[in-house]
This record gives sequence, C-alpha cells and structure tokens, in this order.
Amino acid sequence: MGKKLTKRSEDYSKWYNELVIKADLAENSGVRGCMVIKPYGFAIWEKMQAGLDKMFKDTGHQNAYFPLFIPKSYLSKEASHVEGFAKECAVVTHYRLKNAEDGSGIIVDEKAKLEEELIVRPTSETIIWDTYRKWIQSYRDLPLLINQWANVVRWEMRTRLFLRTAEFLWQEGHTAHATEQEAIDEAELILRLYAEFAEKHMAVPVIKGTKTPSERFAGAVETYCIEALMQDGKALQAGTSHFLGQNFAKAFDVKFANKEGKQDYVWATSWGVSTRLMGALIMTHSDDNGLVLPPVLAPIQVVIVPIYKGMDELEAIDAKVAPLVETLKTLGISVKYDNRDTHKPGFKFNEYELKGVPVRLAIGPRDLEKGTYEVARRDTLEKESVAAETVVEKITVLLAEIQENLFQRAAAYRDERVTIVDDYEEFKSVLETKGGFIAAHWDGTPETEDQIKEETKATIRCIPLESYGESGSCVLSGKPSKQRVLFARAY
Amino acid sequence: MGKKLTKRSEDYSKWYNELVIKADLAENSGVRGCMVIKPYGFAIWEKMQAGLDKMFKDTGHQNAYFPLFIPKSYLSKEASHVEGFAKECAVVTHYRLKNAEDGSGIIVDEKAKLEEELIVRPTSETIIWDTYRKWIQSYRDLPLLINQWANVVRWEMRTRLFLRTAEFLWQEGHTAHATEQEAIDEAELILRLYAEFAEKHMAVPVIKGTKTPSERFAGAVETYCIEALMQDGKALQAGTSHFLGQNFAKAFDVKFANKEGKQDYVWATSWGVSTRLMGALIMTHSDDNGLVLPPVLAPIQVVIVPIYKGMDELEAIDAKVAPLVETLKTLGISVKYDNRDTHKPGFKFNEYELKGVPVRLAIGPRDLEKGTYEVARRDTLEKESVAAETVVEKITVLLAEIQENLFQRAAAYRDERVTIVDDYEEFKSVLETKGGFIAAHWDGTPETEDQIKEETKATIRCIPLESYGESGSCVLSGKPSKQRVLFARAY
Repeated sequence: MGKKLTKRSEDYSKWYNELVIKADLAENSGVRGCMVIKPYGFAIWEKMQAGLDKMFKDTGHQNAYFPLFIPKSYLSKEASHVEGFAKECAVVTHYRLKNAEDGSGIIVDEKAKLEEELIVRPTSETIIWDTYRKWIQSYRDLPLLINQWANVVRWEMRTRLFLRTAEFLWQEGHTAHATEQEAIDEAELILRLYAEFAEKHMAVPVIKGTKTPSERFAGAVETYCIEALMQDGKALQAGTSHFLGQNFAKAFDVKFANKEGKQDYVWATSWGVSTRLMGALIMTHSDDNGLVLPPVLAPIQVVIVPIYKGMDELEAIDAKVAPLVETLKTLGISVKYDNRDTHKPGFKFNEYELKGVPVRLAIGPRDLEKGTYEVARRDTLEKESVAAETVVEKITVLLAEIQENLFQRAAAYRDERVTIVDDYEEFKSVLETKGGFIAAHWDGTPETEDQIKEETKATIRCIPLESYGESGSCVLSGKPSKQRVLFARAY
Repeated sequence: MGKKLTKRSEDYSKWYNELVIKADLAENSGVRGCMVIKPYGFAIWEKMQAGLDKMFKDTGHQNAYFPLFIPKSYLSKEASHVEGFAKECAVVTHYRLKNAEDGSGIIVDEKAKLEEELIVRPTSETIIWDTYRKWIQSYRDLPLLINQWANVVRWEMRTRLFLRTAEFLWQEGHTAHATEQEAIDEAELILRLYAEFAEKHMAVPVIKGTKTPSERFAGAVETYCIEALMQDGKALQAGTSHFLGQNFAKAFDVKFANKEGKQDYVWATSWGVSTRLMGALIMTHSDDNGLVLPPVLAPIQVVIVPIYKGMDELEAIDAKVAPLVETLKTLGISVKYDNRDTHKPGFKFNEYELKGVPVRLAIGPRDLEKGTYEVARRDTLEKESVAAETVVEKITVLLAEIQENLFQRAAAYRDERVTIVDDYEEFKSVLETKGGFIAAHWDGTPETEDQIKEETKATIRCIPLESYGESGSCVLSGKPSKQRVLFARAY
C-alpha cells in the first residue's frame, strides 16, 4: 500500500491520480495516452455496463457491432462532423510489416500501402449510417434502436486516467426514426435514462439540459447532456444524447418509404457514455482515505476480516463466519472473507478502505465470546458492535442506507454550489472562491459565451431543462435573456 | 425473405454465405474484410460471452482491459512471436488529418507522423507482458488470472463472415504462474472448459488434443486445441489454449522472488476463442431451411404465432396467449409472441425457421376451441398438437431434448467420420469421398507433415489427448509412430 494519499485539500488533482493508481483501478500503459484498466477498476465498469445494458434492453434497444475502422472518405460526408472529428485521430496507412534488409528489426512494408487510409473510429455515426442505408427501405423497418459497446480513439495531447485518454471504452447508441418527433422523444428518453443511471446506480446527482450551439456534438441539431459537480467545484459532463435531425441520413442517402408511400430522409439520434463515468464516480464520493463506492456498483459490497492470534482462534472464526458468508451470497450480496494469514488486520482495513468497500465486518475472540461483529461503514467511517443474529439484517439495511446517503450527501454538496448571480464581478468572484455552477442570464450569442470563457475559463455547461425562474438581462452584455444558464469550469 | 437458400448438397459454401445474410447474423461492411455483426447474430454472441465469462469467473479469473495499440518494437521482443504476427497487420503511422490545401478533401497531415508506428493488436501477449513486469514482484502476486474481451485485427486477404475476418471479437486469457506445472495445469483446465462450453452450450462435439510443433501458436511451448467437424466433412479449430513456458517472461523481463527468495522467470499461458465460434455453430447444426440453434444459445427460445381472420379472433388468441407468455418468462424461457398484423403466418413460420428458433407454437381458432397448441420443433421439424394445460411442461422438456438431440446428432455424424487408415492411397481416397478426420500414424517429422499437406491439403488437426490405441508405422514414410494423429482438411 505504501504511504498515504495526498489530501484532497492539498492538491485535488494529485489526490485523484494517486487514488486511481493505489486503489488498483487503472494505470498508464507503454502506449502514449492509452490506459490499462486493472481488474478491480474493470469490475466496477462491468457493473456499470450491466446496469446500462439492462436499461437499454428494457427500452427496446438491441446490441450490434460495427467495424473499428472508418474509411477516410466517410468522415468527409457530413460537413460539420468532419470538422469535429477528423482532426486528432489514429490513421492506419499500411497493412504489413517486414524484416528490414539491414537486419535492424521490423519495418513498415512500403509496398503494403492502403489505397484509402482508415481512421480508427473516434465515434461511429458515419460507418453506421453507411450500413443503415442497406437496412432501411420502409417505415416498417423503423424505428431502428441499436447500441454498441466498443473502444474508440481520439488522439488527445494531454491525457488523464479515465477522464481523458486516447483510447476509451464506451457505448454508443444510434437510432433511426420515421419522424422528427419520434427522434426527439428518443433523445430525451435516453437523457432521462442516463440521469436515472447516474443518480440511482452511481449515486451521482446530475442536472439535465441542452448544450449551446457552440458546445453541440459535431453533426447534431440538439445535444442533451447530464452535468455533475465534482468535489473541487468543477463540472463534469457525464453523458450526452444527440438529436441529429436528418443530417446523417442526407450525408449517407438513407431514405425510407413512409406510410403514404413517399420517400423521406430518416431522422436520427446518437448517444453515449464512457469510462469517463469512472472519473465522475471517483470524484463525487471518495475521501482522503481512498475510494468510496456506492453499494450498487461495488464489486465487493461486504468484506469480513478475522482478528486472531494463532490458528485455533482463526479456525473458530472461520467456522463462525462460513454460514454468514453463505447467507449473504444467497441474498445476492457480494461478500469477501479475507482470512489470508500473510497480512495483518490493520493492513486489510486500510486496503478495503482504500478500495471503497461499503461495509466492513471485523470479528475477534471477544466478538466470538459475546456473539457480535464490529460493523463499519465506509461512507461515514462509523463503527458499531452488532449481535450476530441481527447482522444480516443490519448489512441489508446498511447497504441501502449507504447508497441513499452518498446520493444525498452529493446532492447537498451540489445544491450548495449552484449560485444565482446577476453581476459579472460577482460571477468572477464566486467562480474563484466557491466554484460550482453559476446560474446566470446569457444573451444567447456565441460572442458573449466566448468572452466569458476567455476571461474566466467558465463555459456554459447547459441550458437546464428545469428552468431557474424568471427572464432577465445578460450578466455580461445586459441584453435580454429568457432563462438562466449554468456556467462552470469543467473537466 | 426473398427466395430459398441454396441447398447444402448443391454448394455448401454458398449455402453458408446465404444463411449468414438471410438469418440476419452478419454482413460485410464498407471496410474491406471487416464485418457488421447484426443484432440477431450479436445476441447469440452475447449468450456465448455470458456463458464463457461465468465459467472463467467461476474458475477464479478476472477481466481487465489493455490497449488496442502495440508499439512496433514490442512485437520484436519474442523472436518466434514476431514471425507469426508481425506480417499482416494494421499499422498506425499518423495521428492527424487536415484539409487539403487544394480543397479536395481531407488528407493525412505529414507533420503528424508517429515516432514509432503502432500496430492494432493481432493478439495481446506483448502489451500484457510489458504490463505484468510492473505487477509481479513476488510469488504472492501469483497466480495472475486475467481475461479480456476485445477486438483484434489480422489483415486477412481472403475473408469469410465469422470464419476469417480482418477484425474479429474474442476473449484472450493471459495468466502468470510461479511454476511450470501450474501453468500447464491452467492451460489444460481452460482446454477442458472450452470443450465443456462447446459441448454443453453450443452442442458441438469436439476432440481435445495438442498441435504439432509447426501448427503451434507463435511463441508457445505447447498449443492445446479443440477441433470440431463441420457438415461438409471439414474440420474447424474452435479454441486454443497455449502453454507459453517462460518465453514471454524472458522477452519482457518478468521475474519474481519465489518462496526461497530467489529470482525466477514467470511461467505463462494464453488462450482464446472468437466470433469464429459463430461459424462452428452454424455449420454444425443448420439445414436447408436455415439456422438451427441449440436452446441454450437461442436469443428467442420459443415463438408463438397466432393464426386468425379478423381482429376478433386475434383478440381472443391474444387473451389466451398472454398468461402463457408470462409463465414462460417466469421460468426464464425467452419467448416472443409475434402478433404483427403486417405479416402472414406463413411468412412468420419461414422467418423463425430461417432464424433457428428451437420451438414454435401456433394457435388458431380451432386450437382455441379444442384448448390446444400446435407445437413444432426446429431440429426435427416435427409437429404435434398439445393440450394447453400441459404445454408449459412440453416446452420445458422439449428445450432440453432439442439441446441434447443436437449434440447427439452432431456427435453421431462426427463419430462416423473418424476413419482409421493405415495406407496412404486409402488416406487420399477417404479424404476425397468421405472427408472427416483420418486417424493415421505419423512419424513425427515436419517433412512428412508438409508432404501430406501439399499432396492432399489435409493437415494434422491435433494429436488427440485420448489416444486411438496402438503404436504403428507412419502412413506416408512407414517409420515408427507412437500414436495416431488426426488429419483433416480444415477451415
């Protein structure tokens, strides 16, 4: 385990980096900007995947798989899409290596140059809409509700584990509809689904909204998003859902015969969340002792640590604990009994604290005598002695309580940090001293948006769907504004 | 649905290609050699994944994720590995595109050339062992039992859906051990696990064996494999498990302190199965009417089709069927009630036959009167009338029976096509007329192996673990042989 974590108050960014490494979540690889997701981190991601996948399927979506590579020419077909995505990307130019003639090793075989370069997908709208052209002829083929779990690559210059990596894992939904309204309904359905996942599974409160035109996905007519607040007062975009209009259908010539027999372009959405959610999860709940995990996503929900001298005591504890472990497993609770003799209890306590296990039980000879367990909860670090007969019930209650408490704690923190501001000087001072979201009026122009961004590093995170009341005048220009938008500095 | 499938007896290869397309399993994409796995095909793959993933986890393995890209220099570190894998692969040379100055579109930005080229992983031994060096210090860190689900790319010149594609999906296990014996035990454990999966989930009988040195995985000391027999008499390698010795540990300098405190190189295995299994599944069970799926892997296990005139009859049937659907769902049986009014029953019958749904129920007005369902099984195409009160039991029994029947049928077919041969002329004639596996003696030399391959196109599929009896003399050279090996033409 080595030395303690840097404190959040000392250096939040350093704390995050250390925590990701020490809690065995992920690490940098030998390939620039690409991470290795370690088994413990991956187990959390798998629980996220399973939760989301079920929600997608329950709402009628199916999974499929499309190619990793996108021919360069595809990217050019949708004008604004190419501007957004054809810049920093991994380009495959050759398909063979050979031994160097001078014996110096292997080199690219220049004879094996591709006629057209292939791009490693930064997102899959183009290859998917090229495919949909073959799948969609009539309104009977619609809606087409498809998702894929995949890796994507965006060549980022400055990377951070989970938050910004060259390769990351995600899901991307791509749906096709007969009418504009259906597509808008789908984009909004997914927005609500993402919000529910964030709040119920991750215990991360989010604000639902739409992006300003300049922050929209490249190729979208409207981008919906959920925005979360991290412990350092910075916002994090946790998921986006795009209404794409007929842009990709037009670019890839995807038409269908409607009920009246007329040809029309198909309406589209796309939406995604990624391993970035791991960053949001970490930075919402964790503390100076390490990771804090909501029970719904914890790979280990309960850990039991024996405290003993000599093998006789350990055997007595083993015998006592075995039926408890069985009972918890039957209840679908993920439990680990750590009776490794190679490590001391104190070491184990630190390890599971660092790894965010929600509930820890300890049992020593005195507990054996008294028929008790010491039960500790990770979120508040509180401990209490619980009678063995009621410990299963206690655990069940505690897991639900921790899940709820984490959400409430994060929501309270976030709510305190939504500040209503009407004055630009106050805007700047709140940003410096308090951080968080600033609900301010904006005149709706990209010029004002840019100027505020340049002067304060705050961007418009979203135009919230649940409005903050009255109309007013722009915090910078004084021009009229219909509703407040949320500004913040962001990840 | 269009016209009927080509018959298997007419053109097996054409039948396969048509079936994959018509049953909505997969199709070629706009990217050479890369396939699109369609929702129905992907749902089968997801069931395979779930089954395998559970077996891996039940035997102590954990999932993780390693980078898509491998620096070119990594591939050179293990001498025989580079020979096997550094030839046909996708090479990333640049990380940026830009607008062409002449306005002709986007082009590669020559300024953004990578210092070292990156290879899209054809398999991940090198990047993973480069990582393990940091994870393994002591025997306490061992064994390390890790699996990853990933996409890999091997630049194939001649591709076929599922069987040989440039990009494919797979799982790759990579384990590290303190002793040679432990690593061998792991490779053999996985071999048995693969065989169990093939036989119990896919209903595909397999023969377990080891590869000859010339057919071994590049970098392995021993390659174990499972071999299946397709309906056209050709063999298909369905999974491999490799004992890698200390080759990768030496190449990447991965040492550990053993219990005596001495430094030693780590012992390794790797193992994988891929979307190629989809090809094996299709070519083991399907018939001239379409796909035949074992119930364990069928996305839809039971389909119910109403036969009616007018909405009154349909409503009466809907009401009758609703509780049956609920009951089946409660039992964990995946059921679809297809009461689409846009398609006729005959069309639906054909569709579900083509898609291999194991059990089909039909219910019309006469069934309503009599209180019956018509129950049809996909494997034998038999139909019978079953009383509504006993239909749930009938379905449960039938699903188990179909699973077992498919396995037995395939096993009988395979067993008939393992021919013991002692004469080279007979060898050639059996290969031409009957196909299948030929159990023949081999003198153990690569020269004989090569000559037979050149003259007959048959390769040694494996040296079977369960030996075919006595020693003898080589079918070609007449030199002594300790055991028979299995030859076949193969996919």
